[in-house]
Formats: sequence, structure tokens, C-alpha cells
Amino acid sequence: MKLKELNNVTLIGLGLLGGSLGLSIARSMHNVKRIGYSHRETTRTKAISAGIVDSITTNLADSVANAQLIILCSPIGTFKTILTEIKDRLQPGAIITDVGSTKVLPNNWAKKYLPKDVTFIGSHPMAGSEQRGLDFSRADLFDHAPCIITPNKTSPSKDILLLKRFWEEIGMRVSTMTPLQHDKVLAQISHMPHALAVALINSTPKDQALLCGKGFLDTSRVASGDESVWGDIFMSNAKNTDQAIGRLINELTRIQKALKSPDHKQINNLLCKAKDKRNNLVNQKIRRKELPL
Amino acid sequence: MKLKELNNVTLIGLGLLGGSLGLSIARSMHNVKRIGYSHRETTRTKAISAGIVDSITTNLADSVANAQLIILCSPIGTFKTILTEIKDRLQPGAIITDVGSTKVLPNNWAKKYLPKDVTFIGSHPMAGSEQRGLDFSRADLFDHAPCIITPNKTSPSKDILLLKRFWEEIGMRVSTMTPLQHDKVLAQISHMPHALAVALINSTPKDQALLCGKGFLDTSRVASGDESVWGDIFMSNAKNTDQAIGRLINELTRIQKALKSPDHKQINNLLCKAKDKRNNLVNQKIRRKELPL
Repeated sequence: MKLKELNNVTLIGLGLLGGSLGLSIARSMHNVKRIGYSHRETTRTKAISAGIVDSITTNLADSVANAQLIILCSPIGTFKTILTEIKDRLQPGAIITDVGSTKVLPNNWAKKYLPKDVTFIGSHPMAGSEQRGLDFSRADLFDHAPCIITPNKTSPSKDILLLKRFWEEIGMRVSTMTPLQHDKVLAQISHMPHALAVALINSTPKDQALLCGKGFLDTSRVASGDESVWGDIFMSNAKNTDQAIGRLINELTRIQKALKSPDHKQINNLLCKAKDKRNNLVNQKIRRKELPL
Repeated sequence: MKLKELNNVTLIGLGLLGGSLGLSIARSMHNVKRIGYSHRETTRTKAISAGIVDSITTNLADSVANAQLIILCSPIGTFKTILTEIKDRLQPGAIITDVGSTKVLPNNWAKKYLPKDVTFIGSHPMAGSEQRGLDFSRADLFDHAPCIITPNKTSPSKDILLLKRFWEEIGMRVSTMTPLQHDKVLAQISHMPHALAVALINSTPKDQALLCGKGFLDTSRVASGDESVWGDIFMSNAKNTDQAIGRLINELTRIQKALKSPDHKQINNLLCKAKDKRNNLVNQKIRRKELPL
């Protein structure tokens, strides 16, 4: 299947990501019919009136019956149930993907529950997360942001290509990894930093925090994320997150050692290395248009 | 001395903080004459043409001869030399303060080098830090931001009150601590979070960081700060910063333990506690107008 042959997409779960995806598809793929599923009536009503989907159903299995591409946009914790409920109604050749933040478990579940004549390839579009719910949906949420797709060794290359082209059409910069690689990398760049923000807040007495400046607020920002979403992410990537926290503690211990010596030169080296590395990162992100100038 | 009797202020060092202070004073205290000192000729020329000060001198000792209030706005590393150079030209009753990020060392130096008939009380206006230099000066840099002043037990209460009123007139929310308390609190809310951002960046391989989203960029933002400024801060508050890093590592270890168990409920508890605590903090900052709505 080529991207221009894609006519039927089903979005399961219509929160911030599912809703924004509906708007993005409408913006960039005019001949795609978008079918939505949500278990909440208020969400279903809003999704139709806001033009998030073309039609909506209250029956999960029905929602996938004609779909060439099915995208799970609900929390990871719901995937097992959803896969079990839709598995007998999928068209042969259908591609199933998701937008979850960890990829090993969904990939294992798909292998276990889905029939052999469909393809599951996980996706992780890395955009938006603090605001929740359909109301915050934006057609440009995914523009220029990174998306990681995670085929395994049995994934047909034509399906990998279709999925890659789909996210690129949405406006994303796509890279490819195995589910295992993905979860290891994400532990380092997302799950451990979240743990770190949580630890920072939890180790700071309230009255002291009140005196903080903008730096502390930025460093701790992600700790305001929803605990049920992040609890699921942590538990579904526990080992990698634990190891990434271990590497962070090693670096913190190097700083402690230099402070105790005291070794001013080593402190400056560590600070300088971090400053240069971060400035280079920001400049590369600006060149790639992931960040504004 | 009452605030309205304050007519002569000397600013030593005209970077972002000294420059912004010059503009703030002009905005809110019309009868104050601002004298500036900078060792760089380009800075001196700019300071006059941008209206940062009313007059400028190339001689450090001369700059304080008529001042009722002297504010050290140069890096902490320069304080010892400055105090030695100005000590014989200060007016009896003059108040000397600074804008440095640690307070114990400046307070000790002042005790050692300054004559008995002047008062040193440290100040820490907590505003602006990433951009450096006079060119970024803004009259509103200090508006609504916290300022901590750090008298010791021998500081005359009339001088404490004058300094408090001065920063309030600049637009700041002033609180008072001993130098010791200040350095302990700042280690927790500023110096340790900086160490943490540095450790995050240094523990993340370049190619992985490139895939990061906005969360990682925010969590690591302060690591882009100047290494010489932060190296000085770290070394002048080494013990407290080391201890604050220790408390952070304890919290990180609690998360690791819950991940290893695995204890989903404990993970959710830690995440929920952090979320509530941070959201309360942000709401209080909004009520105090330190953050926009």
C-alpha cells in the first residue's frame, strides 16, 4: 500500500494525541476517512463537532472493520484489552500502531494477541504531554517533532515504509529503532529525567521551594505530569529507567567528589562539558526546526 | 537613613544585574544619583549612553567616596580585591551590599576587610541569569522576583530596614535570613538543581539527546549557564551543595527501589506527591505575581 492508497484510518482513544492526530490527518491527507472510537459520550460528541473525526462509533470492534491503519491513542494500560477485542474484526493486511511512550510491552502484546495476517509496528510521536484531553487538540502539535517507529525483524518493509511516510506527512521527523533500543533510549531522555524532576521536588521542603527562581521551576516542570500516565510508563520500562537513574547518580557522585576535594578545575570541566553539549544540542534542534530561532 | 534620604548609590560592575539595577533605580528613585564603575572601557561608554548610570569613573576607590549605598555587582571572585581597594574611602555609615549567589563568604570577607563604621549586609536578588552583559539590561528584570537579604547579628536594624525598602522599591519581594541559612536554602533550590541539570546532560550520549522532546530541554536548561560563574558559586557553597545532592540521591534511590520491587502503588504515590507539591508551588507563585497567569 502506498500512502495515497490510504483511505481509512481508525483512531482509538481521543485525548490530546488522538484528537490532534485527527486534525493533522484532515490537514494533510484529504482523501483519508477518519473513524473514531471513545468510551466517553462527551468526548464522542465533541470529536464530531470539532471535526476531529469524520464518523464515530461506540463499538470498538466495529470501529476497525474497514480500517487500513489503526492507531491506538489510549493509555498503554488499555492495549491488551483493545487488541483482544479488535483482533477478529481486522482486515487482512491492516497495519496497527500506537502512540505510547514505551514500545517493548505493546510489541509483545501484539505478537501474542493479533492474527498473523496483520502488521503491528509501534510508533512514538514525541509531542505534547502536559495538557490532557481532546480540548487541547491542535493540528500542528506534531510539526517538526521527532517520531520513533519500532519495527521488529518480522515487520514487512512495505508496511514500515507506509508508516514512516504517514508520520512524515503529519509533519514529523521519523527515525527507526527496535522496540528494545527505543525503550533504552527513552529511559535516558524522558523517563529518567521525569524521575529526576520528581526527586527534586520531593527532596525540597515547601517553604524553601517558595523562594525559588525560574531555574528550579523549569528543572522540575515535568513533575507536574499526570501520575497515572507516568506510573504506567515507569512500570512498563522499569529496568531501563532504573539503570538510567543509576548513570545519573554516577554523574552526581562525580560532582560531589569534586566539591569535597575541593577541585575547582574539575568542577569547571564538568560544567563546561555540560554547557557545550547542551548548547550544541539546542543549535542542532534549531537547525532542524524542532525549536524556534 | 530613610529611603527618601538616599541620594548617592554606587554600582560596582555593570553586567546584566548591575545594568538592570541602574535602569531600575532610575525608574523608581528619581532623586538618586547613580555612579558606576567598570574596568572595561566599552562597558563604561555603553553604560553612559544607555542611561544605566549618571556618571562613571575608572577609579574604584573614587567611585565610592560620596556613596551612601554601594552595591557590588561583579563576580564573587572579585569581592576580596574590591573590598580592600575601597575600604579607606568609604563614608562613615555607608551601607555596602552585593548581588552574589552565595552569602557566607562575602559576609566573612566584609567582616575581615571593612572598617567598623560601615555596614555590610549581603543581598541576593533572584532574577535573570542565562544572558550575560550590560546589553541585556532591563528596568523590569527584578519586578515581583524574590530577594533575600542576609544581615548578621551585629547589623544595625535601621540599615537592614533601609536595604529592605530599597529592594522593595526596585520591585522585589524581600525576605531575610542569616548568611548561613541563605546558603543552605540556595544549595537546595538553585545550586543542587544546577548540578542535577549538568549530571543529566553529561550522562546522556549525544545521539540519544538529539531525539529528546521539550521535557529534557527544560529539565536541563540551566546547564547552559556560564561555567565560570557557576564554578565560583559551587566552590563558595561546596558543603551545602554536596549535602543537597545527597538528599536528591536519596529520593532517586527511593524511586529505583520502587521500580525494582516492582511497586506500582509506591511509584504512583511518589509521582502524585511531586505533582501536587509542584502544582501548589506554581499556584502560589502565580498568586504572588512572580509568574504570569
